[in-house]
Amino acid sequence: MKDRVLHAPDCLERLPAIDDALYVIGGKWKLRIIIALSDGNKRFNELQRLLKGISARVLSNELKDLEQNGFLKRIVYAEASPPLVEYERTEYADTLKQVVMSLHEWGAMHKKNIMQRSKEEMVTNDKG
Amino acid sequence: MKDRVLHAPDCLERLPAIDDALYVIGGKWKLRIIIALSDGNKRFNELQRLLKGISARVLSNELKDLEQNGFLKRIVYAEASPPLVEYERTEYADTLKQVVMSLHEWGAMHKKNIMQRSKEEMVTNDKG
Repeated sequence: MKDRVLHAPDCLERLPAIDDALYVIGGKWKLRIIIALSDGNKRFNELQRLLKGISARVLSNELKDLEQNGFLKRIVYAEASPPLVEYERTEYADTLKQVVMSLHEWGAMHKKNIMQRSKEEMVTNDKG
Repeated sequence: MKDRVLHAPDCLERLPAIDDALYVIGGKWKLRIIIALSDGNKRFNELQRLLKGISARVLSNELKDLEQNGFLKRIVYAEASPPLVEYERTEYADTLKQVVMSLHEWGAMHKKNIMQRSKEEMVTNDKG
C-alpha cells in the first residue's frame, strides 16, 4: 500500500487546525516577515527592502497582525532623535520551526522537480 | 543554549526555497482545496460548498493553477449528460504530507495556546 497519509479517513478532520494555522500565518507575507527577522531586529525600511514588492501599507498591517499574535515585538528607542523603531522576533515565533523547515524542504524538492521536468521537455522538443 | 533554529545564520538562505513553496501553495485556498480532495474526487459545486466563502471565479482560477502545477487532474465524463467534471488529486499532492502535518500540529498547538491565554485573562479580570 502506498504512503497516502493525506488520504487517511481522518484527513478532513484536520482541516480546522490547518485553517487556524493558515489564518494566522497564511497569506503572502507573514512567514516571510518572520523569517526576515531571524538574523536580528530590523527597522521598517529594512524590512520593506528585504521583502521585495511589499507596499508600506501592507507591511504596516502585517506587522500589526504579527505583533497582536505574539510573533514579534515593536521596540521604540524614544531617546533617539528621531525616535527609532525596531521589530524583534519573539520566542513564540520559534514554534514555527517545523512549519518553516517542511516548507523549505518541499520548496527545494519542487524546484528540482520543475527543473527536471523542463529539461525533459527540452529533450523531447529537440527530438521532435 | 535555546533551540532557536530559525536564528541560525543560514536562515535567510532558506528564503528562496520557502518563496518557491509559498508561490505554489501559499495563499488562502490552495492547501485547503488539496485537503478537501483527500477523501475522494469532487465536483466544482461540492468543492465550493466545502470551502466556505470561496467565490466561483476564485475557485476556478485556483483549480487551474493547481492543475498546471500537477496537484490535481480534471476528469471529464463526456458520456454523461450534461457532461460531468470531477477533480482528482494526483500522487504529487502527497508530497505535501509533511507540510500539511506540520501546519496541522502547529495550528492545534496555537489554538490551545490562545485558549489558555484567554482563560488566564479571564482569571485576571475576575480578580481585578
